[in-house]
Amino acid sequence: MSRISETVAAIRPLDATAMQSARERQNVLTKPQGSLGRLEEISIQVAGIQGRPRPDVSSKAVFVMAGDHGCVAEGVSAYPQEVTPQMVANFARGGAAINVLARHVGVRVVVVDMGVAGECSDSQVITRKIGRGTRNFAVGPAMSVEEARRCVDTGIELFEAELARGLDLVGTGDMGIGNTTPSAAIIAAFTGRSPAEVTGRGTGIDDKRLATKVSVIERALATNKPDPSDALDVLAKIGGFEIGGLAGVIIAAAAHRVPVVIDGVISSAAALIATGLAPRSRDYLIAGHKSVEPGHGAALDHMRLAPVLDLGLRLGEGTGGVLAMSLVEAAVKTLNEMATFSDAGVSEALEG
Amino acid sequence: MSRISETVAAIRPLDATAMQSARERQNVLTKPQGSLGRLEEISIQVAGIQGRPRPDVSSKAVFVMAGDHGCVAEGVSAYPQEVTPQMVANFARGGAAINVLARHVGVRVVVVDMGVAGECSDSQVITRKIGRGTRNFAVGPAMSVEEARRCVDTGIELFEAELARGLDLVGTGDMGIGNTTPSAAIIAAFTGRSPAEVTGRGTGIDDKRLATKVSVIERALATNKPDPSDALDVLAKIGGFEIGGLAGVIIAAAAHRVPVVIDGVISSAAALIATGLAPRSRDYLIAGHKSVEPGHGAALDHMRLAPVLDLGLRLGEGTGGVLAMSLVEAAVKTLNEMATFSDAGVSEALEG
Repeated sequence: MSRISETVAAIRPLDATAMQSARERQNVLTKPQGSLGRLEEISIQVAGIQGRPRPDVSSKAVFVMAGDHGCVAEGVSAYPQEVTPQMVANFARGGAAINVLARHVGVRVVVVDMGVAGECSDSQVITRKIGRGTRNFAVGPAMSVEEARRCVDTGIELFEAELARGLDLVGTGDMGIGNTTPSAAIIAAFTGRSPAEVTGRGTGIDDKRLATKVSVIERALATNKPDPSDALDVLAKIGGFEIGGLAGVIIAAAAHRVPVVIDGVISSAAALIATGLAPRSRDYLIAGHKSVEPGHGAALDHMRLAPVLDLGLRLGEGTGGVLAMSLVEAAVKTLNEMATFSDAGVSEALEG
Repeated sequence: MSRISETVAAIRPLDATAMQSARERQNVLTKPQGSLGRLEEISIQVAGIQGRPRPDVSSKAVFVMAGDHGCVAEGVSAYPQEVTPQMVANFARGGAAINVLARHVGVRVVVVDMGVAGECSDSQVITRKIGRGTRNFAVGPAMSVEEARRCVDTGIELFEAELARGLDLVGTGDMGIGNTTPSAAIIAAFTGRSPAEVTGRGTGIDDKRLATKVSVIERALATNKPDPSDALDVLAKIGGFEIGGLAGVIIAAAAHRVPVVIDGVISSAAALIATGLAPRSRDYLIAGHKSVEPGHGAALDHMRLAPVLDLGLRLGEGTGGVLAMSLVEAAVKTLNEMATFSDAGVSEALEG
């Protein structure tokens, strides 16, 4: 059995008993029932994921996986490809938005070079290059099926290494010039929506580049004919190394009962690959935020996930995800730390 | 000159130079311009409020003001009035949702008895009773104009005392059985919407009590005829002691260039009083979240404020506000701590 199929087979349904116990506790905490809204739902989901009525999310990390994309040769991005390793170096030195936000909310940042075209030489970067950028998917598959499998295996391996250091809640993030293009292609392949519907401006491209980007995705789908019933086929034909790595992180987290907060459109494309490989992994996901990329909403709808935040973000890196991780922790703390009506000697409602 | 008019007169427009400087810095930080969405806007607003291009929000407090309401005699709430002092005691002992969430995000909680009917004897509670609950506004004014003035004066005084301890960002919160009723009345008075449009289920009342609540608000407006061009008149006739106290906190914060994160429907009613007294105070407000109470959206629209969070909360206490305070801090930290393109040696976009 391969590492992927072992991991998929290890994913269990959520623990209904722990969820019921968490729900009953939320109902006797000193507040009107249901008045903490989404926070109550999240606390109950996390109880079900971790399999304990009083969950704990004190140890937190975000995986920021980087890769390059052959399709940038088609002119789909406003930034040159050299920005990918430059930003990886920025992550390693702590100067990027993800570093600032992760420090703010107490999340460690794990930076992985899954397949950057240039060199990432900082010692804080984990190097697992599957290749030096994918091939141009407008003219053929982005990678081989064997490379796709190695991406996912690598994500599983790195998640398990991080789990050994203590990990109760994980986030996903990305870096890769051009990577909203394969993400939109993956979203089109799984949701059946047209490339024009799910393709956005990424880092901020103009109308002309947007038209090019849509046409590149149309060609990628027509040339490669990805099969949405086979997630590895989709990843190989129209994916990216960092997207495959994040899919591996997600299924490994689900197998180890760790909740996963996904970030924006690239993380959601990775989640589509993950839920394609392992439909049960969907229940372990929390959608951190709603990006302004149009494909993001389509991907979340397809997975029946509702975003926690809506702040008009379109940066990636895991930025929206880590902000939501703090809200997940807030939700868990209300469940664990609030007084009950009887603890606090507070009268309950006159009616139900 | 009264304390209120002195405070109102001290409120200056936001500092356009500091805002421009913050905006220019956001545009050279290592991310596509505008990609941090609402966080960028908030950081620029806070720069303008504090009058410095690199603002600081490290010292944070939320005022949780409590009061009782004569209109509970009409049967507008599902909870008995004794819950107000019981919850104040819960705040003092750290067991309520606001305590848990404020600890999570590093905000101190200042609990004030502005006019609870019963006793609040915990030493951590600041006692400033304007009365023992307001009078029933269905049959006459909730309080005298002199009492309304004392509420606002007290909010100013308490804000200034807290400012002396160090305060860069303030939140508003409330406790008071029945207090969504005066809040909806205030919102109807200022926005011109009908009581039926702006009245919600508060702690979770049934259809019968909701109909009663709407009719009580209709009677309150018909009996008292509050004048929306005179905010103290509105506060006196259909307000509450905690609502007036929070209005004082808001105008004092604006006068001292401290950003204010408002919570749900009660805080928004207080903000309507504050912006009625001092229209310029509106620019110092950040709407923490969108409550499920229908009047809340109407109040925010009236003040042209967009909520930061939308988590289905309907608890009050400042809970949604303190969660948003952490996002305000995150926004300020991105402005202050991120590397610029030139710091990090990252290439800029190929096009504008």
